[in-house]
Amino acid sequence: MADRRTMILEAAARVIARRGVRGLRVEELAEEADVSTALIYYHFKHRTGILRATLEFINDRAERYTRQRDPGAPAVDARGELEQTLLLELQDTPEVRENSTAWGELRASAVFEPELREDLARATLMWVQEVAELLGKVHPMAGAAALAQAAERLTALLEGLSVRWLSGSLPLVHARHLMAEAIDAELARLAG
Amino acid sequence: MADRRTMILEAAARVIARRGVRGLRVEELAEEADVSTALIYYHFKHRTGILRATLEFINDRAERYTRQRDPGAPAVDARGELEQTLLLELQDTPEVRENSTAWGELRASAVFEPELREDLARATLMWVQEVAELLGKVHPMAGAAALAQAAERLTALLEGLSVRWLSGSLPLVHARHLMAEAIDAELARLAG
Repeated sequence: MADRRTMILEAAARVIARRGVRGLRVEELAEEADVSTALIYYHFKHRTGILRATLEFINDRAERYTRQRDPGAPAVDARGELEQTLLLELQDTPEVRENSTAWGELRASAVFEPELREDLARATLMWVQEVAELLGKVHPMAGAAALAQAAERLTALLEGLSVRWLSGSLPLVHARHLMAEAIDAELARLAG
Repeated sequence: MADRRTMILEAAARVIARRGVRGLRVEELAEEADVSTALIYYHFKHRTGILRATLEFINDRAERYTRQRDPGAPAVDARGELEQTLLLELQDTPEVRENSTAWGELRASAVFEPELREDLARATLMWVQEVAELLGKVHPMAGAAALAQAAERLTALLEGLSVRWLSGSLPLVHARHLMAEAIDAELARLAG
């Protein structure tokens, strides 16, 4: 059984993906998670505490589904691992849609809620470092700055494509195609 | 004197940039624009009408400030025009910050408000076509599909970098550097 804290965070991700960060009220979250508001305040102190913990939770979850391998699937090389990590963020499954919607909402909310910014900057940096590391596995001779910048561009592009997909401006299959081409281009540059 | 409709739209962009789309109430907008709510309903019918018109308004404004030339500035070539159009979206001036914040908010809101999606998709397409045209001036021999895809990537990256900047995850000067490198890379690809 998932512990109470995790259940609350799962419920918070659902509520944010359904109605946005601005729609998140502690009373509604309590109802969604089927716990008391007192328990929520006990675990997270205040609304900002909930948002920060939800940010961490959806990051961990994204890391899990982008690293998932089917037990029978053939082993992938470094390039395959990179492609999979990025392209699995563009999948029309309930989990990925919910996660991407909640991440995009937390990103957009941080423009108006400065108290989210530090956590969001840290989560962004960790994501960039993870992708830079994967790029470095494909091109071990590339410099650290070049790897970091390629990772910043790829992850920022992914955020841009993801919100276009979720807001109905870009079909998912085309978003994946654009992303795959960008990965090719960044790898070609790092090789040059 | 700006007409009343324009004054209302200027006020709407300010309110959205200050408190978000979700914070936009017609009463507050009336106060900000110093008009009656009846006049707002007369011009825009309903809240969605205001949001759609504001989307168009901030697009026109962005087109204006990204195409602005100082009277004394030297003429720019096709590449310079492309760079200027994209990089002038990453400027820390009150107008660009307000415009970019409002655009990002309308994008994020469309995930939750389906009635905004069609207008947003149309505005996105027009922006992509404009950038594809500028890319085509630099490389007149490139195919239409290649130009469109490069423009889709550059504009999606710009949205991703812009919201990172506005949410405090990326210094502006670094966002501009990443964008400039991406323009180089897409132009090199179109030349190849």
